[in-house]
Amino acid sequence: MSFIEKLQWRAAVKKFDPTKKITATQLDSLLSAVQLAPSSYGLQSYKVIVVQDAKTKEKLRAVGYNQPQITDSAALFVFASLTTIDEAFGKKFIDLVAQTRSVERESLEGYEQVILGTLNSRTDEQKVAWSHKQAYIALGVLLSAAADLGVDAGPMEGFDQEKFDEVLGLKEKGLTTSVIAAVGFRADDDKYSQMIKVRRPKEELFIHI
Amino acid sequence: MSFIEKLQWRAAVKKFDPTKKITATQLDSLLSAVQLAPSSYGLQSYKVIVVQDAKTKEKLRAVGYNQPQITDSAALFVFASLTTIDEAFGKKFIDLVAQTRSVERESLEGYEQVILGTLNSRTDEQKVAWSHKQAYIALGVLLSAAADLGVDAGPMEGFDQEKFDEVLGLKEKGLTTSVIAAVGFRADDDKYSQMIKVRRPKEELFIHI
Repeated sequence: MSFIEKLQWRAAVKKFDPTKKITATQLDSLLSAVQLAPSSYGLQSYKVIVVQDAKTKEKLRAVGYNQPQITDSAALFVFASLTTIDEAFGKKFIDLVAQTRSVERESLEGYEQVILGTLNSRTDEQKVAWSHKQAYIALGVLLSAAADLGVDAGPMEGFDQEKFDEVLGLKEKGLTTSVIAAVGFRADDDKYSQMIKVRRPKEELFIHI
Repeated sequence: MSFIEKLQWRAAVKKFDPTKKITATQLDSLLSAVQLAPSSYGLQSYKVIVVQDAKTKEKLRAVGYNQPQITDSAALFVFASLTTIDEAFGKKFIDLVAQTRSVERESLEGYEQVILGTLNSRTDEQKVAWSHKQAYIALGVLLSAAADLGVDAGPMEGFDQEKFDEVLGLKEKGLTTSVIAAVGFRADDDKYSQMIKVRRPKEELFIHI
């Protein structure tokens, strides 16, 4: 299957087969894809909580409009933005760049100033909103990687953000939930994956100049 | 190359080779990927302006911090959110669902009420912010599809949103720019694609529960 055919195969699965587990290799590929997703300046100002524990999934389902895919999927990916994206965070990122590329930290001073300038020009609220959007890029890459592997992945925005943060202890970790995705395998009788996919025609979606 | 290897190959290309054009087949694959990207309720409350016209790209570069990839890339993808996401929009979407799946419109009434309820519970500003996030999922899918095809694609947030809207006449079209991506082929001497990719280690990025 081509990548496009794989994207056609993917669906917003609502009914997962709870007996089908994801292999360690499949999970690691998905983590690699998320890790490789680009973000503004490369900051990756989010973390991803991968929930496989049944009890935690039960608690999340209770604050996620009781949606069965939260418990029946093999893993729930919870994208969460950092809540403090400050100078110290920017400087630590430059440390990581220097270390990864084995370059003198001083040679990155210009890059550091650009990043710190951006961070300092925004309010905390703006930075978290910005960071949520970066998490959505990573979500798009996760969904693509899952389709490539033949693993089902359904993004979800229907959950109580504050209560998700509470169940996962995110506030204490300096995090807040951005968006979630249920990852696993569709049940044979999942009706959503059997429906014809609805998409706007290209003539409507694209404007060519 | 596996999909993960392709994501490793991809880079935030800054210097494109302006002589390398994208083929119609490659471009159509990218458009198909963006079209297939999921969005909340499937609403696709955005459009994508694909700019290949040299003069328009020049004008956009002038309001995009003079970044050369705006003019040197083969195509600039401008994701733009609708500015009016109202009941009429929600109802037209249900028309599309009924038509695509050849079902009675009445059978979709429950789904329609859920969508209209969500739309009516949010301010215009909240809806546009929400829609921008959906565009970022499509951006993530575009970047994935480009990597799969061996086409370079670099997302960019550094541009003057209001002036982008002005150059592209988006306000009159009921649109506002979300995020952009330069698509094309890296120049042999693009230094960014030759650098070691910086990513946070998995132990830092992921929390397993």
